[in-house]
Amino acid sequence: MASTFDGVPAGGDGSIAHGGRLAEARRLFPDAPQPFLDLSTGINPVPYPVPPLAPQAWSRLPEPDDLRRLEAAAAAAWGTEAGHVVAAPGTQVLISMLPRVVRLASVAVVGPTYAEHAAAWASAGAGVVAIGSPHEGHPCAGVVLCNPNNPDGRRHAPGDLAAIAEDRARHGGLLVVDEAFADLEDGPLSLIPDLPGEGVVVLRSFGKTYGLAGLRLGFAVAGPRLAAAIREALGPWAVSGPAIEIGRAALSDDAWLAVTRARLTADALRMDDLLAGAGLEVVGGTRLFRLARHRDALALFDRLGRAGIFVRRFADHPNWLRVGLPAGERDWARLEAALR
Amino acid sequence: MASTFDGVPAGGDGSIAHGGRLAEARRLFPDAPQPFLDLSTGINPVPYPVPPLAPQAWSRLPEPDDLRRLEAAAAAAWGTEAGHVVAAPGTQVLISMLPRVVRLASVAVVGPTYAEHAAAWASAGAGVVAIGSPHEGHPCAGVVLCNPNNPDGRRHAPGDLAAIAEDRARHGGLLVVDEAFADLEDGPLSLIPDLPGEGVVVLRSFGKTYGLAGLRLGFAVAGPRLAAAIREALGPWAVSGPAIEIGRAALSDDAWLAVTRARLTADALRMDDLLAGAGLEVVGGTRLFRLARHRDALALFDRLGRAGIFVRRFADHPNWLRVGLPAGERDWARLEAALR
Repeated sequence: MASTFDGVPAGGDGSIAHGGRLAEARRLFPDAPQPFLDLSTGINPVPYPVPPLAPQAWSRLPEPDDLRRLEAAAAAAWGTEAGHVVAAPGTQVLISMLPRVVRLASVAVVGPTYAEHAAAWASAGAGVVAIGSPHEGHPCAGVVLCNPNNPDGRRHAPGDLAAIAEDRARHGGLLVVDEAFADLEDGPLSLIPDLPGEGVVVLRSFGKTYGLAGLRLGFAVAGPRLAAAIREALGPWAVSGPAIEIGRAALSDDAWLAVTRARLTADALRMDDLLAGAGLEVVGGTRLFRLARHRDALALFDRLGRAGIFVRRFADHPNWLRVGLPAGERDWARLEAALR
Repeated sequence: MASTFDGVPAGGDGSIAHGGRLAEARRLFPDAPQPFLDLSTGINPVPYPVPPLAPQAWSRLPEPDDLRRLEAAAAAAWGTEAGHVVAAPGTQVLISMLPRVVRLASVAVVGPTYAEHAAAWASAGAGVVAIGSPHEGHPCAGVVLCNPNNPDGRRHAPGDLAAIAEDRARHGGLLVVDEAFADLEDGPLSLIPDLPGEGVVVLRSFGKTYGLAGLRLGFAVAGPRLAAAIREALGPWAVSGPAIEIGRAALSDDAWLAVTRARLTADALRMDDLLAGAGLEVVGGTRLFRLARHRDALALFDRLGRAGIFVRRFADHPNWLRVGLPAGERDWARLEAALR
């Protein structure tokens, strides 16, 4: 079923398409001016500054206490308790591993959305059904959705999701809510502060908001039983020493997050104006990317690519482009010139 | 069955005991001179020098091509092809995840050995049996062993293991060989250069040999089908940008490895002399740790601990101590003084 989502084979190897693959950009646009301006991801282009690291962060096995302090910082930032939070080397490994921890016969994925969810459940042997709304009827034990959704920014009210989670739990099922892009959005949005028991797991990304996707840090938030099962499947020391140290500092830095939110709020509005001025219809997004419609989106993808600007296209929605946000004025000017 | 292995609850929380937990050392020996000299692990105390990292290693999602180059460097170092090698955020996550990727009803673990293997299979629902030799009769689909073994350094000939793997494969089972401590040993030891088909997976650690346990990097080496299944369970981007960059440099650096092997060979001999002089009987080990027997090993553990030197004890073998290697002359002098 993964092919009903937004899969564009990335490099002829049958893998799922993703933003941020500059090797693909160079292959598609060998004559483009380098370096590429990569707007194909939803990653904050202004990273949290990596502090100087203690040599022990590299050399020693991370101490269990330090991992717990990282999880406590995340819990405090999101309004829950540390026992609900499980740190992992990125959200993706949680997405890939979850269907092997919680065995479900069938899963309904609310799409179109991030394609790795459907692929992971299918790879673990679950039947995967694509639905358009979490309220749509289906016979599946599991429901997976992104809130806000990628790529269209669609939102689900936490109260609605809590009801779905309770219903799933009654039938031995599970609701998976991927909140990868929730950090910078206005609430109420997240399920975490009022986690409804064991019928739900919420996934949170670190790398997107903090612009540190290479660090590999993400979190599962769940009731004690499911949290313990995920912890066991990861084993001790799944998270690196640098990720523990940097993650803890960043997740405790409210001032940095406030400044970042204000900047990205302004930048998202600026991007909407720019896209509208270039004849695109903005149909949604989050504060880390915008989704726009254009009747000739693939030609525009090519034009930008030849100018060294890499955005995200969608095989199943050829009139869509997803555009990330530039880091600063030089990159804005380059995008403005290419769209003119 | 995990309790038949070397589990000493680390902090009263029922978790498996491990070396390298300085919080535990401080709790046990609150009056010891600080900093502790940590000889409780089998991690090289002289790390591979961390090179300056490109900012993109932190900020960008790792490119699939870069991950493949890391796996190719590992494959070249170990005498196999890149397609057999799957990089992961540490060997431990592979140990914890493998029983959820390959479902086996029962597994025989050759012990006493690293306790996480038995715990991981039991946690995934497999029946776990402790055996003393891989040639011992048992009814299990899976066999798990460490080569060389931790903590006693016992070795298995690759030819014997290949025969076991072929036998397991015929019965739809699996041989898991944890070669975490193989890098620095004299051959023939590793199964990797002559990997016998799909009935085996070999696990290799990076952090121990290269002294970078906090980086979290390890590898599974397997036939194409099992390698693909492990790759799918990890998903893309399980390994951090810094781990890809540092791992690739280190695994291609034959000169550093040769110097390290010579130093640790000499240091292991020096440690054996020191332990024998202090009345301990050295019973085995590898070039990263030595296992010694003493009728009053727990008293010695305490004496060293009060002197700020943390070694590894074993609940099920109260006359054993495992001792890692000091980094330099100051640490050697401290250990010599405490053993006098």
